[in-house]
Order: sequence, then C-alpha cells, then structure tokens
Amino acid sequence: MNKIVVFVLMLTVLSWKFLLTDAESSCLELASGIFSPKSGVHTLVDSDGAPYLAYCDMDTDSGGWTLIASIHENNIHENGYCTQGDPWSSQQGNSPYSPDGDNSWANMNTFGNVVSATSDDYKNPGYFDIDAGDLMIWPVPNETPLKNWKNSAYLRYRTDNKFFDAYGDKGNLYSLYKVFPVVSGVYSGPGDNGPSVPVVFDEGTVDDVVQHFGPTVQPYLTPGFIQFRALKQSSQEGAFALCPGIKLETACIGSSGYTSFSSEQCGDFAVMATSGYGTGTGWSVDKQMIETTFLLFYR
Amino acid sequence: MNKIVVFVLMLTVLSWKFLLTDAESSCLELASGIFSPKSGVHTLVDSDGAPYLAYCDMDTDSGGWTLIASIHENNIHENGYCTQGDPWSSQQGNSPYSPDGDNSWANMNTFGNVVSATSDDYKNPGYFDIDAGDLMIWPVPNETPLKNWKNSAYLRYRTDNKFFDAYGDKGNLYSLYKVFPVVSGVYSGPGDNGPSVPVVFDEGTVDDVVQHFGPTVQPYLTPGFIQFRALKQSSQEGAFALCPGIKLETACIGSSGYTSFSSEQCGDFAVMATSGYGTGTGWSVDKQMIETTFLLFYR
Amino acid sequence: MNKIVVFVLMLTVLSWKFLLTDAESSCLELASGIFSPKSGVHTLVDSDGAPYLAYCDMDTDSGGWTLIASIHENNIHENGYCTQGDPWSSQQGNSPYSPDGDNSWANMNTFGNVVSATSDDYKNPGYFDIDAGDLMIWPVPNETPLKNWKNSAYLRYRTDNKFFDAYGDKGNLYSLYKVFPVVSGVYSGPGDNGPSVPVVFDEGTVDDVVQHFGPTVQPYLTPGFIQFRALKQSSQEGAFALCPGIKLETACIGSSGYTSFSSEQCGDFAVMATSGYGTGTGWSVDKQMIETTFLLFYR
Repeated sequence: MNKIVVFVLMLTVLSWKFLLTDAESSCLELASGIFSPKSGVHTLVDSDGAPYLAYCDMDTDSGGWTLIASIHENNIHENGYCTQGDPWSSQQGNSPYSPDGDNSWANMNTFGNVVSATSDDYKNPGYFDIDAGDLMIWPVPNETPLKNWKNSAYLRYRTDNKFFDAYGDKGNLYSLYKVFPVVSGVYSGPGDNGPSVPVVFDEGTVDDVVQHFGPTVQPYLTPGFIQFRALKQSSQEGAFALCPGIKLETACIGSSGYTSFSSEQCGDFAVMATSGYGTGTGWSVDKQMIETTFLLFYR
Repeated sequence: MNKIVVFVLMLTVLSWKFLLTDAESSCLELASGIFSPKSGVHTLVDSDGAPYLAYCDMDTDSGGWTLIASIHENNIHENGYCTQGDPWSSQQGNSPYSPDGDNSWANMNTFGNVVSATSDDYKNPGYFDIDAGDLMIWPVPNETPLKNWKNSAYLRYRTDNKFFDAYGDKGNLYSLYKVFPVVSGVYSGPGDNGPSVPVVFDEGTVDDVVQHFGPTVQPYLTPGFIQFRALKQSSQEGAFALCPGIKLETACIGSSGYTSFSSEQCGDFAVMATSGYGTGTGWSVDKQMIETTFLLFYR
Repeated sequence: MNKIVVFVLMLTVLSWKFLLTDAESSCLELASGIFSPKSGVHTLVDSDGAPYLAYCDMDTDSGGWTLIASIHENNIHENGYCTQGDPWSSQQGNSPYSPDGDNSWANMNTFGNVVSATSDDYKNPGYFDIDAGDLMIWPVPNETPLKNWKNSAYLRYRTDNKFFDAYGDKGNLYSLYKVFPVVSGVYSGPGDNGPSVPVVFDEGTVDDVVQHFGPTVQPYLTPGFIQFRALKQSSQEGAFALCPGIKLETACIGSSGYTSFSSEQCGDFAVMATSGYGTGTGWSVDKQMIETTFLLFYR
C-alpha cells in the first residue's frame, strides 16, 4: 500500500517535471538542468512567457547552443535583388528610400520555422531575447534535414571570448546591431566597421574558409574571424551585416537596403555572386558556398 | 498516510488545473475563471480547438482584453506604397485590379507573432474567432518590448457600448467589415461610411489625439471616436479601414487596394504622410504618430 | 482508502494519456491509437520532435487523413501573376531567371496556419515529413470556416492504390516532386509528364469535375485522375504541379516560375483564367472553381 502511494507520488512529480523541464529560456539553461536533454528540437520560453521551438546543439564544447536564426538565399538572379525572400536585407527593392531595408538584424520581427531552417530564412524570439556570450556559425547545404545539420556542416566555428557581454544587460546580435546598424550611407572612414571577433574551429580550418572565395577576393580576406557590420568604402554606400569566417567587407551576407554601386549587391547573399552564380572565379564564391544556409547559434 | 493520499490527490488535480486553466477562448474568459491570471502572454484555444498565443490586458476596467491585431508601418516612402509588409492594405501595388487589396480586415488569414507585435504586423485567430463587445486601441512606439506596452502607450481608449453586438452572433471586426468592406469604388454618398463609435479614455484626452495631426487636417477631425470604413469622397475611390481616435476620412489606417487620387495614399499608414514623413505640417501627422504601432484589443 | 489510491492512480495515468495521446506523427497514427479522436484540429509531432497543428479527417473511408497543404489564389489579375501570395508557383514575377519559382512543392519551407487554410496558402511539416500512401483532395469555397470544410466541399476524391509507395522510404508529394520537378524548360516529349493516378469519389462524380471547365478545354480532359507535373508542350516552357481531378496539362494549379507563352499563365491558379476570371467560357473555369481552395490530405 505504502509502495503504491510512493509510486503514484513519483508519477505525479515526474509529470510536473516533464511539463516544466522544457520551460527554460535558452538551450544553455536546459543543459544546466537536472535532465539535460540531447541535441534536437526543444521548447523554450522567452522572458515574456511566450513558448517557441528551437534547435539545441548539446554537443559542441559541452553544448548549450541555441539556434536563433538561419540566413538562406532564395533567388540571387536578375529578378532577385532585395525582393521577396530577402528579410535579412530588404524586400523593398534596392532603393535609397529604404536604406535600412527590412531592418531584421536590429528589430524584433520573427519569421520561418525551425524544421525549415535550411529551406527558408528563420528568426525566432531568442534572437533578441536571449542574453548570449558567444556566437557559433554552421554553414550547411540548402535543404539539409534537421537531423543531418551537424554532420553536413562543412565548417563549424564559434567565438570564445564572450564578446556579446560588451553589448548591455542582454548581449546578442539585436543589441550589437543597435550600436552598429546595417544601413546605407554611414561610412565616414575605415574605423566605422563593426567588431571582428576571432573564432575557434570545431570543423575545418582557416584554409578551408578561404578556398570557397574567388581568387580576386582572397587577397583581401583575413580568415578566422566573424566580421560584423562591414561597410563598403568611399561612396558605394552599402553595408553588410556579417562576414562568415572572415574579416573585411567582401563576400558578406545581409546587405543594407541600398547600395549605390550596383543593385546586384543588394540581397541576403547578393555580393557573393558578383562574378556569376557559384563560379568560384573573380569576386564570386563557389557553388558549395552560394548554396549554403548559415545557421547562427547563441550561448 | 491519509495526508499523503490527499496531498497526491491535490497535486494531481492541480496538474489538471494547470493544464486546463489556459484552455479558454478569450482573455475575458480567462479573467472570469477561478485562477484569473495577470496581464501578459497566455494560450487561448479557438472554437476549432486550435491553441494560439495572445497578450491579455487584465488591468483596464477590470481586465479581460485580448490583443487580436497590430497595425505597423514598415515603409512609407516612394518604394513602399502597398508593397511587401502592408497586409492591412495591399501587397500588390496600388492597382485597380485588386480593389480590396489583401482583404485582411475581412478574411481569416493570420500573420506575425505576439512578441513581435510592435515590430511587424500581427493578426491572430481571435480577430475572427472571438465574440466581442468592445474595441480598445493603444498607440505604442514602434519596437517597444511587450512588457512596456502599457506604460509606453501615449494614448489608451476604448468603446464602451458593446457596439459589436450589432454584427451577428460573433460580433467583431471580421463581421463588421463583412458589412462595410474596405474596397475601392464603393462611395455613392456621405452616408456610406461605416459606424463611428465614441470612446472613453484610460490614458490621454481628446485634445491629445488632435495634437498629432497636421494643421490642415485638424479642422476636419472630431476626436473621441473610432471611425470604421471611411471613404474618400467623390471620385477618389479610396477607402480606409479605421480612423484611430477620430471621425472622418483623413489620416486613417489600412487603405483599400487602390486609390485613384494618388498611389501615395495606398498603404497601411500611407495617407498620414501626405505632406511628408512625420512633419506634423499640412496633411501629415507628427513623428510620434507615424512611428506608432496600433494595438487592437477585444472584450 | 484503497479506492482513493486507485482513483488517484487512474487520474495520473489519464493525465499522461492526455498529454501523450496527441504525440503522433500523422492523423493515421492517431486513428490507430486507443483513443481515436474525432475530425478536427490535433497536435502532431514530426520526426524531429517538433509539434505542429493539423486538421484530421477521421471519417472518410475509416479516417486517418492529415491535411498537409492548401492551395489558395489571392490575386489572378494583371498585377497578380507570380507575385506576393503565390508560394505554390513564384513570388518573383514571371521570369526565366527563376525557372523553379519558390520551389515549395519540392522544398521544406512552411507557411500559413491551419485555421486560415481557406483564406491563405498553407503548408505544414507533414508535407515533407509524413510517409504517405494516398492523396485526397477537397475543393472548398474560399473563406469557408474549418468546421464546414467537409460539408462545403463540392467534390471529394482520393487515390486508392498507395502510389506514393513508389517514391522512397518516405513517399509523399515532396519526394514525388524531387523526381518530377516543377520547373520551366524541361519538356522534351509527351512522356515527360509526371504520373496520373486514378481517383475514387466520396462526393461528386467525374461528370461533376468536367462541368467546371470551359468548353474549349473539355475535349482535352480525362476526368477521374490526379495529374502530377503536367508540362506545356513544345516551346511554351511552362510546367504545372497538379491537375485536380483530371489528366493533362490544361487548367492545372501551381505553375513553374516561368512560362514563355504568357505571363498570364504564371501563378497558383493563373492558367485557369485564360479566357477571363470565372467566365466558364473558352479556356476558363467557372466562378465556383476559381474561387476554390484545394485542401490536400495524406494517408
């Protein structure tokens, strides 16, 4: 009799645990709990009490990484410069009237769906809600199913110095881009770029980063960094949100809403195809890189 | 022993309560329950059994107000008239071929996310599912985080006469705009406007409403009302869904899909910037009002 | 005393059941469980563990049908050919630069909301995640509320030969369109169309299918089938994803991103209005069919 009561009590407590275990605000908090779950999709709850789904990587460097965004290029051709499907740059056309485009790097909109993150752009509330220290990036081939993301990532790298701590009580990309907005026409000198933060590699090397860029671009690259808010120099007026794995302004993702140099540089990935789509010649990255989705994680 | 059994029984009953408390179809039902929750994000369940997140205001006039929509202007410049990001007017361009535009005021689509409601347009299933009596409007500065909405609202007003009861078994904006569609070319005389309903103020006064409008507009305003389906007179063909705080057709939000007078009046807020963006001169509202998101609540 | 313990045990077990009953990956699995639920909205969990809402039809032929998509036309006029609101064809304009358009038939993006499925396009993770055998289609008038879908469907038909089994371990539309992509310029001969699969009718007859098409089209139709990936012949370059109820290329839904014959054939439903909107003359379908949302179910 006593045993039955204890058993029922355990069941009841376990159902509460089951209900409440996932009610954490980041994968790092989940990893710190008594039932640390495996990598995969989990329910997080933001600071307003709103639940949302997120993918957690619970393996890299002891885990605790929350996927908060993916950058995916849907159309990089003549009819695709800052059009529908470019929320990380502008969906209003290359235009001086919308210099900050959709402003998704520095606002609180959300879009997409975690299981579709390599088929479409994705941004969840964690992007602006989680207090992060570091950023991890996985370039993954477009259309890779969630269960294969880690194995398919041909590079995996992350910052390791908690640089987000410099951006307020809630340090993250949202607060960083409030300081360094991705907007056209703000260049006044070489010092106006945002920070470039060194990375450590979990998959691949600095040489692997460089090989995807065209020969004309390579001399300008310093691999082993993530560059934030890279500006086109002089009078070209463009700004780019993030250079994956490299320093400096060439071949970055997430343009501002206007670049006076050429409409062909307006778009989520547009500047990466300056010398043709996936050619790997001149200024263009190779086919593998242009058909990549960049997965962004916080910890 | 007996006590343990009772304790377990209580725990079990409480877990059911916990699970079921939120299963209400509106914040008003939540407020009427035995565990009336505080203002914030809660899970509602529509009449088809589909759960969704909504913000509840549980304070104003004893609470029970459900946020069902937000109207946000993303781009009001030359490249922004009835383009992407204008679901409350048209995303098809100012065009006589789509006189009702996206038709969001009178259909069952949904968009956006409750925690992003001041960064992007938002419409949840409550818009067409909840049986409402009154409407409350909070103008809140763009990009205000959810926890600051109430404090940041520079006006707060609401109807108090259950005017929605006149629009069928399920009275709400959806049923009202079935009777008064926001479509171009329906003007045949001054009596064709929709209803204008008086409001009471919880924050601000009728004078505070007027001061945000340009001097050319002010003589045409009657503050202290919400006007529904305001029509451009004579041959201009435009219709506007909602005039926040005022009677008559000037400076309303949510245009129809076409106005023959000028494409510059097509858009979620477009007519409010007729004499320039945020100038507060001529026909234009001031900067505070043009950079506002209107939060719409039912009770 | 003993009875109380048993009662508490039952309550606890029931709360687990309540929590876990819905954790199935398709409506067919739900129908096979010990608590087979009724038709309506249920929570499914995809193979990555991500929950999502879906509508289940639990009646037709013993039930187990999962709604995975709806095809809805928002604007079929001069300003609506392959524009915003056409995710089942292209939102990039009729353009040779995006021959596969948005590629939604063969990718893992998602959009819309189950309760809005007759007001807007809809695609949930079941589209690419469920291992299906057969496809069912219900044409339902636009704006029909969920609870009336079945009664309002003026036709209801389904395949009955488990044809999806031929498309890999996880047979479904996603895997079928990987084999037969909906892309412009792939026609090399009449054999290049995708499969046409016979259907059985639960509502209506083959004659009822035909009567909605214009007289010019009718001689080309073979009713009683679903045709997949129908190609425009010779040099016209268009492809269409799905012909509802008929064989052959005329009056199908979901165009590729480009048709060189005419931009007026680019769009979710565009080719159905070749001789005017809803005229039922020449090449055009009648008003009932053009104002229909097609609901697609797997089992």
